[in-house]
Amino acid sequence: MDRLADVSNLRSSQSQTQISHLALDIGGSLIKLVYFCRYDDSCRDDGDELRSQNDSLCSKSDNSQPVLEGRLHFAKFETSKINDCLDFLHSMKLCLDVNSGSHDGTAPPSNKIFIKATGGGAYKFADLFKEKLGVSLDKEDEMECLVTGANFLLKAVHQEAFTYLDGQKEFVQIDPNDLYPYLLVNIGSGVSMIKVDGDGKFERVSGTSLGGGTFWGLGRLLTKCKNFDELLELSHRGNNRIVDMLVGDIYGGTDYAKIGLSSTTIASSFGKAISDSKELEDYEPEDVSRSLLRMISNNIGQISYLNALRFGLKRIFFAGFFIRGHAYTMDTISVAVNFWSKGEAKAMFLRHEGFLGALGAFMSYEKQCLDGLTVHKMQQKFPISASSAGDNIYCSLNSNSDENGSIECTVYGT
Amino acid sequence: MDRLADVSNLRSSQSQTQISHLALDIGGSLIKLVYFCRYDDSCRDDGDELRSQNDSLCSKSDNSQPVLEGRLHFAKFETSKINDCLDFLHSMKLCLDVNSGSHDGTAPPSNKIFIKATGGGAYKFADLFKEKLGVSLDKEDEMECLVTGANFLLKAVHQEAFTYLDGQKEFVQIDPNDLYPYLLVNIGSGVSMIKVDGDGKFERVSGTSLGGGTFWGLGRLLTKCKNFDELLELSHRGNNRIVDMLVGDIYGGTDYAKIGLSSTTIASSFGKAISDSKELEDYEPEDVSRSLLRMISNNIGQISYLNALRFGLKRIFFAGFFIRGHAYTMDTISVAVNFWSKGEAKAMFLRHEGFLGALGAFMSYEKQCLDGLTVHKMQQKFPISASSAGDNIYCSLNSNSDENGSIECTVYGT
Repeated sequence: MDRLADVSNLRSSQSQTQISHLALDIGGSLIKLVYFCRYDDSCRDDGDELRSQNDSLCSKSDNSQPVLEGRLHFAKFETSKINDCLDFLHSMKLCLDVNSGSHDGTAPPSNKIFIKATGGGAYKFADLFKEKLGVSLDKEDEMECLVTGANFLLKAVHQEAFTYLDGQKEFVQIDPNDLYPYLLVNIGSGVSMIKVDGDGKFERVSGTSLGGGTFWGLGRLLTKCKNFDELLELSHRGNNRIVDMLVGDIYGGTDYAKIGLSSTTIASSFGKAISDSKELEDYEPEDVSRSLLRMISNNIGQISYLNALRFGLKRIFFAGFFIRGHAYTMDTISVAVNFWSKGEAKAMFLRHEGFLGALGAFMSYEKQCLDGLTVHKMQQKFPISASSAGDNIYCSLNSNSDENGSIECTVYGT
Repeated sequence: MDRLADVSNLRSSQSQTQISHLALDIGGSLIKLVYFCRYDDSCRDDGDELRSQNDSLCSKSDNSQPVLEGRLHFAKFETSKINDCLDFLHSMKLCLDVNSGSHDGTAPPSNKIFIKATGGGAYKFADLFKEKLGVSLDKEDEMECLVTGANFLLKAVHQEAFTYLDGQKEFVQIDPNDLYPYLLVNIGSGVSMIKVDGDGKFERVSGTSLGGGTFWGLGRLLTKCKNFDELLELSHRGNNRIVDMLVGDIYGGTDYAKIGLSSTTIASSFGKAISDSKELEDYEPEDVSRSLLRMISNNIGQISYLNALRFGLKRIFFAGFFIRGHAYTMDTISVAVNFWSKGEAKAMFLRHEGFLGALGAFMSYEKQCLDGLTVHKMQQKFPISASSAGDNIYCSLNSNSDENGSIECTVYGT
């Protein structure tokens, strides 16, 4: 289940829209984009646009207050195929409404265009963006962006958070006034665990190197799958009991009831693969995939719970592009949290799970640009409270995201 | 570094000794044996021995108090090669000094021979032992045996526990009166984490399925190594940075200093293997082995620390046959505990790491046999305190184990 429109669809839909604001989160495996597409007929300010050196990019030249109605869109590319991302940006009719601005607030040379970016790639690929697109990446702190993005989604977007257990998805109504504290677990290539106490108030308390990159990296080596989604899809049909050593395998089919381990509990992930009688090619890729997925999901669930326990946090939100709304992944994480916490802690997931960092970077325009932007909601019944991003940031009450995960909203220049 | 005499050596040494007491720990991957070899000249009681149905096994027929001097020996077999173990036992001049006895204390038929056994295999292979050796396995609880074995080693055996960091091994002097509480982490195929509060006072508080079976299982699939030790040996020469995605790989060579992650921190284990340009055969097995070892050791160290923190335990003892006194494994675990605890908690290791369960089973004879045994130390300056095994259990002050890890001691029949 990939909720993103693919790039070709994006391109055709963009012919009717103007892309005016863009932010990037460049991780170890994936580049995530959040961009605002205005509806042509709702662009109330068609003021002069200063063409950048690069024909496809433009920025506003004055300080008037444009009012733009449109949608926030989301897209992703593999970091290893960053040129596809650059081509995509180059080919888009990208009109940057934000004037350039640097961290120190000094007015930059007027021909400089900044795009907010976070993740390690904002550092690693800064020169490449400059060279290919003539754009400077204005770097935002990765953890800060994740938290800003999560807070925004949890407070402003209807039906964003949900639980998933035994195949049942249940949306959770979040009370913006009773959100904190919570544990945010972002599963990208690696995993960050962040205790969030408020807007801009957070601490990265833990993490693990066993994340999405481990699943995909080990999975590629073991199965010859060609992409992450194919590997994930395989796991649907797999049986981890072929590969994992269960308590029952050690105990001759019986439980180890005294310490609460049933015969089907995994004693040792990949423990059956120690057998001399089978080589890698003798295992079905789907069984390997399922075992791998369960090992990593369960481990993340366990470490997350132990950290939640440490700080007395009852709610754990799992995000990041590892999850991809995948039923078995969410189920495994939920079961792990439920098992280890004996039902005390709850795993929750986010619909826009992969875009927290990019959203956070997007929202940071408001804080720093000379000619910043705000995202107003069309009906102001659902403000995202007094946030670090300012009181004038809202998202539409009608912000049910559509099939592709885009969110309807309005952008105001300040 | 395998501290065990191999089986051929054992056989030749046994020609001069009598094996009188034996206990087994049959795990998912390995069978561990602890047995007492008496010196021929020190066997003060050569009383009648009742030959069992199986010629190679015998048991004592009277209730006199034999005094046996000799050594405790240790051996291991792969569980998948259990027939080798049965052959070994069959071929040994095994003279069981313990009379048979069952849990309920009722006198068993005199032709029944019981051997104390723990681990899941004590259930799974009970029929096989009966059939092949005519021996009944008297099952002891796995966790209880681990704890009994650990307490015995920590209290009675000189230079048993040590720390290992940066290539430096330092023995830790344990004060038997200030041992509890501690966290015992036993890394077999899977991992058990046990909070130990005293003799027989313990709780299995956590565990993880990423253990020795995972290292060996995944390692076999990825490297075609033929045995665990070969895989471990490979890791010496490997470089995990070829396979793992480091913070520096994501950040273009720089640190993410704000949250204390240096450029060489592993962001994602196996994260570089997501690259389309390399297949499994393009990676060196030694690099894969090292990455795998680090992933699993680090993960165990982290989860152990989180559990120690949860219960306020400052000391963590790591045991189990995964470690094998391997420098890089111990170093990784130590660094993980040190890193996550910010120096507050300490990882320690045990010389007889793999034999806790078997030792615990061995010591359980004392509790239950009609004609039990006690292990006296030759110089009684080092009693193992008031233990559940009784005050009359001692181990030699001269119990520095020799090169093969055997321990000098004296066995008394009660």
